[in-house]
Amino acid sequence: MDAEIIAVGSELLTPHHTDTNSLFLTDKLNQVGIEVRLKTIVGDDRERLASVFRAALGRSKLIILTGGLGPTEDDLNREVVAQVLALPLREVPEIRLRLERVFKRLGRTMSENNLRQAQIPEGAVGLENQNGTAPGIWIEHEGVIVLLLPGPPRELEPMFESACLPRLISLAVGDRIRTRVLKVVGLPESEVDQRIAPIYKPYANPATTILAVSGSIEVHLRAHAASEEAADALLAELADKIELDLGDHVFSAHGETLEEVVGMFLGMKEKTLAVAESCTGGLLAERLTRAPGSSNFFLGGALCYSDALKTRLAGVAPKLLEEHGAVSKPVARAMAEGIRKNTGAAIGVGITGIAGPDGGTPEKPVGLVFVSLADERGTQVREFRFPGDRARVRLWATQAALEIIRRRVRS
Amino acid sequence: MDAEIIAVGSELLTPHHTDTNSLFLTDKLNQVGIEVRLKTIVGDDRERLASVFRAALGRSKLIILTGGLGPTEDDLNREVVAQVLALPLREVPEIRLRLERVFKRLGRTMSENNLRQAQIPEGAVGLENQNGTAPGIWIEHEGVIVLLLPGPPRELEPMFESACLPRLISLAVGDRIRTRVLKVVGLPESEVDQRIAPIYKPYANPATTILAVSGSIEVHLRAHAASEEAADALLAELADKIELDLGDHVFSAHGETLEEVVGMFLGMKEKTLAVAESCTGGLLAERLTRAPGSSNFFLGGALCYSDALKTRLAGVAPKLLEEHGAVSKPVARAMAEGIRKNTGAAIGVGITGIAGPDGGTPEKPVGLVFVSLADERGTQVREFRFPGDRARVRLWATQAALEIIRRRVRS
Repeated sequence: MDAEIIAVGSELLTPHHTDTNSLFLTDKLNQVGIEVRLKTIVGDDRERLASVFRAALGRSKLIILTGGLGPTEDDLNREVVAQVLALPLREVPEIRLRLERVFKRLGRTMSENNLRQAQIPEGAVGLENQNGTAPGIWIEHEGVIVLLLPGPPRELEPMFESACLPRLISLAVGDRIRTRVLKVVGLPESEVDQRIAPIYKPYANPATTILAVSGSIEVHLRAHAASEEAADALLAELADKIELDLGDHVFSAHGETLEEVVGMFLGMKEKTLAVAESCTGGLLAERLTRAPGSSNFFLGGALCYSDALKTRLAGVAPKLLEEHGAVSKPVARAMAEGIRKNTGAAIGVGITGIAGPDGGTPEKPVGLVFVSLADERGTQVREFRFPGDRARVRLWATQAALEIIRRRVRS
Repeated sequence: MDAEIIAVGSELLTPHHTDTNSLFLTDKLNQVGIEVRLKTIVGDDRERLASVFRAALGRSKLIILTGGLGPTEDDLNREVVAQVLALPLREVPEIRLRLERVFKRLGRTMSENNLRQAQIPEGAVGLENQNGTAPGIWIEHEGVIVLLLPGPPRELEPMFESACLPRLISLAVGDRIRTRVLKVVGLPESEVDQRIAPIYKPYANPATTILAVSGSIEVHLRAHAASEEAADALLAELADKIELDLGDHVFSAHGETLEEVVGMFLGMKEKTLAVAESCTGGLLAERLTRAPGSSNFFLGGALCYSDALKTRLAGVAPKLLEEHGAVSKPVARAMAEGIRKNTGAAIGVGITGIAGPDGGTPEKPVGLVFVSLADERGTQVREFRFPGDRARVRLWATQAALEIIRRRVRS
């Protein structure tokens, strides 16, 4: 079954907004074997919406409209859909009662406008909204399913999962679609593609896409088959071959982030970690503590943006700073060793570099970063030269640090 | 003049991708008075693309197609547009020469497929691509302008700005559109709306939209007028009234982020800052150091995730931790005062709280956060209870800290 999605709302046509509901819907639809073939974004405009909806009726068996179910004059979806399908709108007493109860609970009086939300096209089914007033609407009409869903994601998502997906699964006759994402670190996108193209090219199913996503390379595999098990088997066959080739550059085969993988290893090995960050300004610690449970392995550390704090908090000898400068191998080494000693962590990590755009010199250009790791086996320091702007240099520097930790604790 | 945008590419119909070129195009088009009325996203599918393009021809005077200009069989835009407009494709010798030069420089041989990129519909104009091989195409046909632009943003953006915008400006007869964003902190969205609705409601032009964006409330104003100056005057009139009402809750009237405003104030007042972060794990420091030049005011600080590091790095007395627990007013106070003393900063800021999802108790629930600020005038501590998940609690905690710093250094 093919679907198309029509996102309705004038705000979605400004430079500041993009429709993201369709990404959620596509993911869920794909999982039950429904492909999204077309997406349209249209403003709160009766005529254009009607024209777009009419065109959709001519080509798709499942049409999902999002937004436009509110109580105001701008919210046209109910009316336009009913009009194009030539179905009269009828007030549903249960929905009206529910609306009245909600307004009473909120201590607000219900206006005439709000009653519009109790109206649905004749023969349609109202879908309960657990997080808002606008009910969704499920219409089956001359072989086409039309779904009207509220715009706010926290209303749309639970409604779609609980009220729509089960019905669609029972109707979907197509293949099941399953996906798998391999995340790769330490290789550029072009090299990943060059290495694995001979492996994935012979496969039309699964289809393979390679993406660069915030410091990692992601290999997306997407298989379709009559059953989920068969699709998973297709994924496993290709994924195993790719993993074998890329080896330990693959840090995740089930969606975990690099910081989650590092946290998992540290937890398993019962190793504690402390960091001393200069040019990354806390980004490494912030990433490590994003996931719950990070207090099991992360002790904390020093934000030593100034030279004085490199000495005061991370124990870097002033002489080293004078002799080699803050962005240098010896200082990076001292930061990792110093923060380890100062905190009693099993592993100390240091980052010092020039994030830019200012502060670079011919000898020490913007993008030069030293990352160090100290543990009971000794200290390693690596030098990097990252391209790109300040945000990219900072991101890549933390990515390099996480990868160095991963390799150290994994072995 | 009204425009519509058709983004072409099967990858844009997966759960992982969204069309962002249209946001850039919308922004630029708006600036010269052209409104985007409809956006369509369609896969690499000849029939659907033709149907969508035909529908667009029936309603819009400017149609921009993005993507689908590559050298492969999947890239259909040239052919489909030529076919629907009934224009033959002709090879342009200059484009062919340019392609040959590019391939020679890269040391690659040009395949037959690549020659497709030298073909454009009869009567059309090729647009030079400074960052790739695919030229853009400008077609004027029976009163409609059709633009074919390459998909990669780094190819599309300079091409649109240098080759398309000047032509469109000379053709656009509509109003100029200008926008202004007021950023508000410390008030919930509903209260912002309640307070300023009586001010903006009487104005149809500028149009006003209120958005909640990562910890701030943004008031977007959008005015159109015959000239940029006239539109700016309309914006200024309404913006001044809104700013007068919301007072110092408005922290930015020209797009700066809260951390940029705080950095600006600290720089102006020549005050240095150090932080001691617990539950935010470095996010406050990371935000403060995102912008270049932060080393002028930010010294660094302590990531004191563990209790031991609260004592070791931020000088919190172990007795305080035992008596009151790490998430408490006295510990927050000691963190700000301790990190100030330990670093010699003019201002010390402390954050301690329970970001969740675990670690909450009935007395100290998830979302409880204490933010403290110590300077030469004394120490203040504020208690917050933030709703939402871990990421939201951490974001709001840093937002609260930045706002406390802003208010202190501004006065």
